[in-house]
Amino acid sequence: MADDFDRVETLRKNPRDDMPLAHRMQRFVEALQIRITKRLDALDDEASFRVDRWDREEGGGGITAVIEGGDVFEKGGVNTSAVHGPLPDRMAEAFEVDAKPFFATGLSLVLHPRSPHVPTAHANFRYFALGENLMDPEDEWFGGGADLTPYYPRLEDVQHFHQTWKDVCDDHAGVADYEEFKDECDDYFYVAHREEARGVGGIFYDYLRDDPEGTFFFSREAGRAFLRSYLPIVTRRMEEDWTEEERAYQLLRRGRYVEFNLVYDRGTKFGLETGGRTESILMSLPPHVTWRYDHQPAAGSAEAKAEWYFQPRPWLDLTPADVPDGTE
Amino acid sequence: MADDFDRVETLRKNPRDDMPLAHRMQRFVEALQIRITKRLDALDDEASFRVDRWDREEGGGGITAVIEGGDVFEKGGVNTSAVHGPLPDRMAEAFEVDAKPFFATGLSLVLHPRSPHVPTAHANFRYFALGENLMDPEDEWFGGGADLTPYYPRLEDVQHFHQTWKDVCDDHAGVADYEEFKDECDDYFYVAHREEARGVGGIFYDYLRDDPEGTFFFSREAGRAFLRSYLPIVTRRMEEDWTEEERAYQLLRRGRYVEFNLVYDRGTKFGLETGGRTESILMSLPPHVTWRYDHQPAAGSAEAKAEWYFQPRPWLDLTPADVPDGTE
Repeated sequence: MADDFDRVETLRKNPRDDMPLAHRMQRFVEALQIRITKRLDALDDEASFRVDRWDREEGGGGITAVIEGGDVFEKGGVNTSAVHGPLPDRMAEAFEVDAKPFFATGLSLVLHPRSPHVPTAHANFRYFALGENLMDPEDEWFGGGADLTPYYPRLEDVQHFHQTWKDVCDDHAGVADYEEFKDECDDYFYVAHREEARGVGGIFYDYLRDDPEGTFFFSREAGRAFLRSYLPIVTRRMEEDWTEEERAYQLLRRGRYVEFNLVYDRGTKFGLETGGRTESILMSLPPHVTWRYDHQPAAGSAEAKAEWYFQPRPWLDLTPADVPDGTE
Repeated sequence: MADDFDRVETLRKNPRDDMPLAHRMQRFVEALQIRITKRLDALDDEASFRVDRWDREEGGGGITAVIEGGDVFEKGGVNTSAVHGPLPDRMAEAFEVDAKPFFATGLSLVLHPRSPHVPTAHANFRYFALGENLMDPEDEWFGGGADLTPYYPRLEDVQHFHQTWKDVCDDHAGVADYEEFKDECDDYFYVAHREEARGVGGIFYDYLRDDPEGTFFFSREAGRAFLRSYLPIVTRRMEEDWTEEERAYQLLRRGRYVEFNLVYDRGTKFGLETGGRTESILMSLPPHVTWRYDHQPAAGSAEAKAEWYFQPRPWLDLTPADVPDGTE
């Protein structure tokens, strides 16, 4: 990956701000992909990211970086893509616009740690433009967010994660609003048929159109905040011992993750429907998963305590006295 | 389960044919559930079916029979339900009808064997009626089918399965057509984003309205044919040795099963959207599942040979010379 990194570094030192936002965002997410994969790679003694480039027949392509079988990360992917061409019918319908050229770029990552004590993380930062001229698109918007899915949640981890995103939002108060983005995240990552949240949330935003330059700046800071939001939790929990019972519970909870991604996630459904690259879209799925019929954690068990966390809550307003014993 | 069986036997000996089809179909599927679970139970030395009854708030309920952790069946469910009440909005929309009472009953089963040599099986037989009066509904139809998902397919198994269903269809030529139902099955159980069939198909039919009495008779014969279509394959393959590599491939293929059920299956999506009982709907999911990034079987491997089977083919017209070596 050294070559990619050098290439992006060269671009970074020559910021051609007359480039369209589309290309600046693409350049940013590709550089971010390298930064994130290098830092994660360094944590894992067993596995490294493997990089696949792919082309999209109708225009553009992507870079898929996947780690599998690691001691810290059992499976994870950090993907970027930059695709363009005629807007697929299915998208034109969803956006209620006529056929016209589109451009989309973004980074999307999902990390499934091996230890049940380390949360799964997801983040994604993306830009979309419609029209012939990317210097002056007919419509353009940013979307993205980051959310955390712990198995044995701890309040201090959840608060660290949320505080990081609140700080980034507060620094970009004109375009970002933590409370609003947190609520959107809680609404979006909800597994309706289980009546529970996918995890402990984070932030989620979409169709941010009002101030494209300001939102690009926010998106960059958010992208850069990901490692800060997540790595301290990984390093704090990865050395803890865990039991077979905890592992079994993690595999069951991963089932909920699969259910969310395949039943509800718009990106997954849309990607599969519009002929996206299946392996890149489904890299979000966990490596090993279990389904059992009607599993209910025993009252008072660590698992029952964990489930207290899987409902939307005002995490940053809570104190250790508010949470189940042992999950502070 | 002896009590249930006796109750149904009593009903069976007193066929009140002035009962609405709705109730005769319910009685039939509940008796079939007992017959099937008893026969499967008898094969497994490690586990037995566990029966859960549930009520639906708006009317009706169901009986869920689940086996888990067996030596033959790692996980399986044979469920019946009979639900009624005001048609949920989401269904009224899908059927393009105004709000009115509905009644639906059916049996649905999925069996995930432990051995990678034994195919997964799915079948379902159902009846739906609309209107105030079940003796003279405004609309009523039957749907159902059975399909097989082998991991290491063998032509003789696939042909036995299809021949059983062809025979049942041929015996009810006025309402059933094997070729048509086979094509519908191939179309329905297709994992579009993988460009492959879920398994080797079988039969699938829906909205059979023309001859309700004749179709009820066909549905009963089809329901009774399930054990005949599947058990000879189970008993022939369950004693074969299998390797860790074969097990690993089975877990990967099960991932495709999950993808189909959560992304495409109308029953699953509809059930979850209309507030069906989640645990009964999702009992179809396999017990242990693996996802790996971009897994491709090596050329000439047993797994590559297996994948030859995961495209629609005219199974009953094939001879051993048509299939990959070792899969006759």
